[in-house]
Formats: sequence, structure tokens, C-alpha cells
Amino acid sequence: MERTVTQTSNSEMQACIDACLSCYQTCLGMASNHCLTAGGRHVEPEHFRLMLSCAEACRTCAHLMLIGSAIHRHQCAACAEICAACAASCEQVGDMDDCVQACRHCEKTCRTMAA
Amino acid sequence: MERTVTQTSNSEMQACIDACLSCYQTCLGMASNHCLTAGGRHVEPEHFRLMLSCAEACRTCAHLMLIGSAIHRHQCAACAEICAACAASCEQVGDMDDCVQACRHCEKTCRTMAA
Amino acid sequence: MERTVTQTSNSEMQACIDACLSCYQTCLGMASNHCLTAGGRHVEPEHFRLMLSCAEACRTCAHLMLIGSAIHRHQCAACAEICAACAASCEQVGDMDDCVQACRHCEKTCRTMAA
Amino acid sequence: MERTVTQTSNSEMQACIDACLSCYQTCLGMASNHCLTAGGRHVEPEHFRLMLSCAEACRTCAHLMLIGSAIHRHQCAACAEICAACAASCEQVGDMDDCVQACRHCEKTCRTMAA
Repeated sequence: MERTVTQTSNSEMQACIDACLSCYQTCLGMASNHCLTAGGRHVEPEHFRLMLSCAEACRTCAHLMLIGSAIHRHQCAACAEICAACAASCEQVGDMDDCVQACRHCEKTCRTMAA
Repeated sequence: MERTVTQTSNSEMQACIDACLSCYQTCLGMASNHCLTAGGRHVEPEHFRLMLSCAEACRTCAHLMLIGSAIHRHQCAACAEICAACAASCEQVGDMDDCVQACRHCEKTCRTMAA
Repeated sequence: MERTVTQTSNSEMQACIDACLSCYQTCLGMASNHCLTAGGRHVEPEHFRLMLSCAEACRTCAHLMLIGSAIHRHQCAACAEICAACAASCEQVGDMDDCVQACRHCEKTCRTMAA
Repeated sequence: MERTVTQTSNSEMQACIDACLSCYQTCLGMASNHCLTAGGRHVEPEHFRLMLSCAEACRTCAHLMLIGSAIHRHQCAACAEICAACAASCEQVGDMDDCVQACRHCEKTCRTMAA
């Protein structure tokens, strides 16, 4: 039987909100503290912009789920793509394991909510 | 010849940022002032949630374009869908012409940037 | 010996970030779900505006602490005042215990960080 | 006769909203484009954190005025202080004239609204 949007449980949505707010905190905190202090490839423009963009997309994704309109699934779809791009950039830069892990987990939960 | 992302001009992006911030201000301002004061169908839960969700999605869409990573196009795609849903809800409620107009314009510029 | 800003521990700041994000989620979630569904005094304009304002101020307060500039203390001072006003409004409306508790706790931790 | 909060005109508030959203766009746009590309002292951690903090404080200040609760004056007070600090940092770094100007103007309109 096909899974439908209305079958999403509250606990699944709360898990996605938690993943988004965790990824938001990790991306913003690491960009502003780890990356700015480390310098070099950590402040390479496109990498840093992806970190800031991912933090913002995740924060907004949690926001739309908290508001509770079914429209949130479009934001979840966008957030999953942005998390995937940020994780890939962090892997390439290296020494960003916490961020890679947070982005991969957030991407996964967002894809489920976007379905 | 096919249009590519890199051919997006700065002026097109600035026009989309302007449309997003205008739609954000209209949705949030009308929800919090016009709708809460009018009451009745204007505070029907799903309509009001769409207004708040649209304001947030538009604000974040402008944010990602200002950051300047190419990843913004995913947010633009999500924002276009959310604007379309908010415009439809505002048309149904009625007496929300400014919001319908702002959402339709924002939807259109976001679809261009998402392409 | 007098306490100075630089003596604020990381764990105190993390506790304040947690309190802000918790209050943000409670205020936005209750406004959009509990209040819009309950109607009546729960959607009285000034009460509802305070709920939305408190959610936003708390979210931004966490944001500035995550960024890590010492300037966050001005945001913490503003957030404490807004939380106090939201808690008072929720007490007056009634049936908003979770929100009163979240606001009071966030107010307290923000006052410490603002000192 | 003493000026009171309720005597603030709508046009004064709209001017402050405009100044906040303009300062937000200038700070975020210059941080993410000018500063990350220029490097050197432009990505010195505390300067860059102030730019991001100022962008966020301004954006939220506009948000609370759009919501329309009288509580916004606390956010305006915080925003004025943060704009002043960001302007000073930009002057010290140099080659940031647009940002200095936007911050000084936003600081001034916020002080008026906070009074």
C-alpha cells in the first residue's frame, strides 16, 4: 500500500524538526567558529556560502513544520538537496565530520517528509 | 541555445530578491494586522498557516540569493510552490488582493530563478 | 571578584541557546496549532502578535549566540523583555502553561547572558 | 509635551522597516560576496561575526515591526547597538563604505523607534 502524506506521524515530523534544528546549529556554529578560525580552504567562498545557506534552509524547514501547514513538504524537498550539497562540500574540505553527519541525517529525514 | 544557470544576470536575481522581500512583508504584515483584526475566515487555521509559511519561505529565498551560492535555485523552486498555494488560499478567502498580487509576482520570478 | 562577560562559560551559553530554541518552538507551535484551533481570546490580535514576536526574538537570540560574537548580549537583553511580556499575556489568556513555563525559563537564562 | 510610543506614525515605522531590510541586505550581501572574496582582514573572525550578527538583528527588527506588537521597541534598542558595533568594525577594516552607511542609518532610525 502506498504511503501518503497524511500518514506521516507526529513523531516522524518531530524527528525531522529535531534533525533540522540540529543541522542548523552545527552548520552555523562550525562556519562561524571552526571555519573562520581555521581559515584557508575553510573560508573558500563557495564552501562558506553553502554552510550559511544550509543553516538557513534547515532553520526554515523546521519553521514550516512547526507552523503545521502541509505545504512544508516543498521546503523539505529543497532542504534535502541543500544538505546533500553542503555535506559533499564539507567532505571535500575535510575536518568537518560533525557537519557531514548532521547534513546527511537531516537530508534523510527531509526526504521522508517530502515524499 | 539553452539557457543555463550561469547566464542568470545580477539584475534578474536582484528583481527576484526584491519580489521575495516584498511578498514576505505583504504576507506577514497582512496576516498579523489585516487577518487577525478581521477574524472569521481570515484566521481559519490552514489559511493563516499558509500566510506565515509563505512569509518565511520568501524571506529565506531572498536570504539564499543574497548569500550568493548557486544552491539557491532549490529554495526558489520551493518558494514558487508555496507562493502559488498562498495566492490560491487568499483568493478563496477574498479581500486579500495585495497578497494575491505579491504572491503571484514572487512565484513568477522564483520559477525563472529555479530553472 | 566581579563577574565579567568573558567569564561566561560555554555550558552557560549552550543552556541559553537550548532555552531560546525550546521557547521558539513552543511559542510558534502553540500559536499556529493550539491558538488558531482554539480561537476566541487565543487569536486576540495583541496576544497572537506577542506569541509570534517572542518566537522570532528567541530564534534570533540563539542565532547570535551560535555566531559567537560578544554582541549577542544586546539581543539577550531584548529577548528577556519580550519573553516576560509573552509569559504575562499567556497567563492572562489562560490554558497556555507550556508557553508560560518556556518563556519564564528563557527570560531567566537570557538575563544571565545579558549581564 | 512628551513624545509617547503611541505617537509613532506609520510612516516612521515603515522608514525603520526599510532601513532594517536595507541594512540586512547590505551586511549579508557584503559579508558573503565582498568579504569572502577579498579575504585577509575581511574574514577576521570577530569582524565577520559582527556582519552576520548585524544582518540577523536587522532582519528580525523589521520582522517585529511588521508583526505590529508594541514590543518591537526592545528589538529596536538591541538592533541600534549591534548596528553601531558593526559600523565601527567596518570602518576599522576599511573599504566597507556601503556597510558603514547602511548601519549608521539603521542605527539612527532604530533609536527613534526604541524611544
